Amino acid sequence: MPEYASFKREQLCGLKAKLQKQYESFKSKNLKLDMSRGKPGTDQLDLSLEVLDCINSSESCKSEGGADCRNYGLLDGIPEAKKLFADMLEVNPSEIIIGGNSSLNMMYDTVARAMTHGILGQTPWCKLDRVKFLCPSPGYDRHFAVTEHFEIELVTVDMKDDGPDMDAVEKLVASDSSIKGIWCVPKYSNPEGITYSDAVVDRFASLNPAAADFRIFWDNAYCVHHLREKHDELKNILEALRKNGKENMVYIFGSTSKISFPGSGVAMMGASEENIKSIKEQLAFQTIGPDKLNQLRHVRFFKDMDGIAQHMEKHAEIVRPKFDAVIDCFERELAGTGLASWNNPNGGYFISVNTLDGCAKRTVELCKEAGVVITPAGATFPYGKDTRDRNIRVAPTFPPINELKTAVELFSLCVKLAGVEKLLAADSVTIDSAVVELQSQRR
Amino acid sequence: MPEYASFKREQLCGLKAKLQKQYESFKSKNLKLDMSRGKPGTDQLDLSLEVLDCINSSESCKSEGGADCRNYGLLDGIPEAKKLFADMLEVNPSEIIIGGNSSLNMMYDTVARAMTHGILGQTPWCKLDRVKFLCPSPGYDRHFAVTEHFEIELVTVDMKDDGPDMDAVEKLVASDSSIKGIWCVPKYSNPEGITYSDAVVDRFASLNPAAADFRIFWDNAYCVHHLREKHDELKNILEALRKNGKENMVYIFGSTSKISFPGSGVAMMGASEENIKSIKEQLAFQTIGPDKLNQLRHVRFFKDMDGIAQHMEKHAEIVRPKFDAVIDCFERELAGTGLASWNNPNGGYFISVNTLDGCAKRTVELCKEAGVVITPAGATFPYGKDTRDRNIRVAPTFPPINELKTAVELFSLCVKLAGVEKLLAADSVTIDSAVVELQSQRR
Repeated sequence: MPEYASFKREQLCGLKAKLQKQYESFKSKNLKLDMSRGKPGTDQLDLSLEVLDCINSSESCKSEGGADCRNYGLLDGIPEAKKLFADMLEVNPSEIIIGGNSSLNMMYDTVARAMTHGILGQTPWCKLDRVKFLCPSPGYDRHFAVTEHFEIELVTVDMKDDGPDMDAVEKLVASDSSIKGIWCVPKYSNPEGITYSDAVVDRFASLNPAAADFRIFWDNAYCVHHLREKHDELKNILEALRKNGKENMVYIFGSTSKISFPGSGVAMMGASEENIKSIKEQLAFQTIGPDKLNQLRHVRFFKDMDGIAQHMEKHAEIVRPKFDAVIDCFERELAGTGLASWNNPNGGYFISVNTLDGCAKRTVELCKEAGVVITPAGATFPYGKDTRDRNIRVAPTFPPINELKTAVELFSLCVKLAGVEKLLAADSVTIDSAVVELQSQRR
Repeated sequence: MPEYASFKREQLCGLKAKLQKQYESFKSKNLKLDMSRGKPGTDQLDLSLEVLDCINSSESCKSEGGADCRNYGLLDGIPEAKKLFADMLEVNPSEIIIGGNSSLNMMYDTVARAMTHGILGQTPWCKLDRVKFLCPSPGYDRHFAVTEHFEIELVTVDMKDDGPDMDAVEKLVASDSSIKGIWCVPKYSNPEGITYSDAVVDRFASLNPAAADFRIFWDNAYCVHHLREKHDELKNILEALRKNGKENMVYIFGSTSKISFPGSGVAMMGASEENIKSIKEQLAFQTIGPDKLNQLRHVRFFKDMDGIAQHMEKHAEIVRPKFDAVIDCFERELAGTGLASWNNPNGGYFISVNTLDGCAKRTVELCKEAGVVITPAGATFPYGKDTRDRNIRVAPTFPPINELKTAVELFSLCVKLAGVEKLLAADSVTIDSAVVELQSQRR
């Protein structure tokens, strides 16, 4: 297929009419589909039903240390949960805190504690005139929103093929002590599905921030979420930092939200022992402890990392065909048009699409008008502002596959329609300019 | 029994020797008992085992609105949980937010949000030079600790028989705009087991605080925790405030921690619709939502307030004999000695004991040396400082009743021993003073 940009005006007009007709036909179907959020489908949730069935007697409520998990206590989790999830985050059991059902909540609380109490003796951020966070973009909207909510200034950093633009990161953190953190989804990133290279992790591990309380928020949400035979590998950042004597610089987050249940999973955070000790001291004022029965359920069901790996293969069997359906449709409908590019990740929950500059909002709008909800254009950038208005996050997991196929067909059509509209508008501008120039020459 | 204070020195010395002998005999038993925290006993936890058994199929995970409780969503709880717990807190379903497993966590977060974001448009507390909280005392140590952790100044207010000293409360909040809140356990209070009178609630509802963002933290933790046939009644504070157009002045908290499971219950907060709306807007940055499966479990098991009331009668059957054992022992060992006073509550989790001034720490220390852990003396006061050193919180629920009986016998003995030591020391001072006076007269 020739690139649409090379088409003449009448070709584009013809195409637009054809696409418009297809679009009207979609609209008449009164679709009501949602590709907006990374929600597992019902069939994925059913994979973990037995999690709910592990505990039903007084005796079965006991943790391996003998503690009754129904009662108060164990602020940082039961020993067997600490062991299992330390393995998952690749930290030691002494380097983990098990939380409630939401890693986002743990991240928010970590920022909140830094605001009111500061990190390891440093000035609380709320006492500073200016606090900034680096936001590799496109990235995860809820990360950016947490820091924005605390009036922290969001600084966009570009994403490259193997992670954030580390030239920019290194320069920024070294020169500006008001930069206190960076948001990262280092494996199967949200939304691009890329995994940070060893070189990028090493550069993170060698950062020399001006701020002593600079922290890398390492949200390893998709650490075991492989889709294909080829698994991406992520270098262990805590180990790499430790080798450089900088192990306090990272907070690692994880959860079983997309392993067991998004609403009723187990969240956790990993960090150096010094960080963990300080966080636990603060945490003791906030709660007597998280839901230990739910930790026990998860450990009983998954047992160990092999159990989790086998379980994730079952997820992959359900999710992979959905990713394939999206990619197939893009290949068929968009390849060679020059109207869009996209990634084909080995894991995670998203496919990231770049339209022509200035076409993302229009594409999402067209989808919405025809009954398909997509993550708002711009959501993947700080303050919701994609200056090039081109990035769209596609979340293929939630709709059943037949609905997904319809939704992504419509989406591809909308990408094309928005693209052709853009090309025609640009062409008009060219013609208009030419006419103006011609008229001025005649005078 | 004559009051010990009327005893002559040699009588006291004889008593002390006798008590000391009894104490040594206790010590030789190598006890290891705990009456320190308000933890339900294992038999109480077993009452709710079926909570864990209500959900085991895909279909049974659906809330009445059709939402799959395993997945993301429903920030403020599932409709049936909002209905049930709104009934429990005596608010409307539009006036409640269902949280995670810990009401303490909801209180902490509420203070934290006020610190960083302020309340309904007022200045965030972290931007103010001075913030104070009123702490009716004796009270709950974890309440005081939350505010102390945020460097909020704790102001002690006396507790009377029917609630806080409202003369003091009214005067303080009206005159000092840095007073931003007050901690209350209005029903079966911690530790005294008293319930605020209608008159006290009405005076709360008529407060005229200097601070627009003054809030009553109304921790109704024991709202359904009756022990005896006579139930205390607590006037509805939100209703009372609403009548005065002041419904934004209260945050109500509750949980099932001592209804189902302390570690795996459901927590909730009630407030005016305007407060709830504002909190939900902030909460949306912190989490996608709490554990809805656990909400569903609780609603399936308890069904309605009648279900909760019947369930609480079962708790009372287990807990009442423990309270009776403590009160019986106090009546037998301490009545008439003038060494201690205590309450006999109709509900809740604690018995509050006042020793002679200056004897609480010594009593707890003596207990500890003999293997019985009691809540630290002073814990029921801000900064852990009971200026009269007399209040001790006894928590009878956790130990099995035979162990409890032993523990409370030892406790009573220690109260007496500490009391006699005090009387003897006072007597010595009197004698010493007399001797000094005599000598000076002779010169």
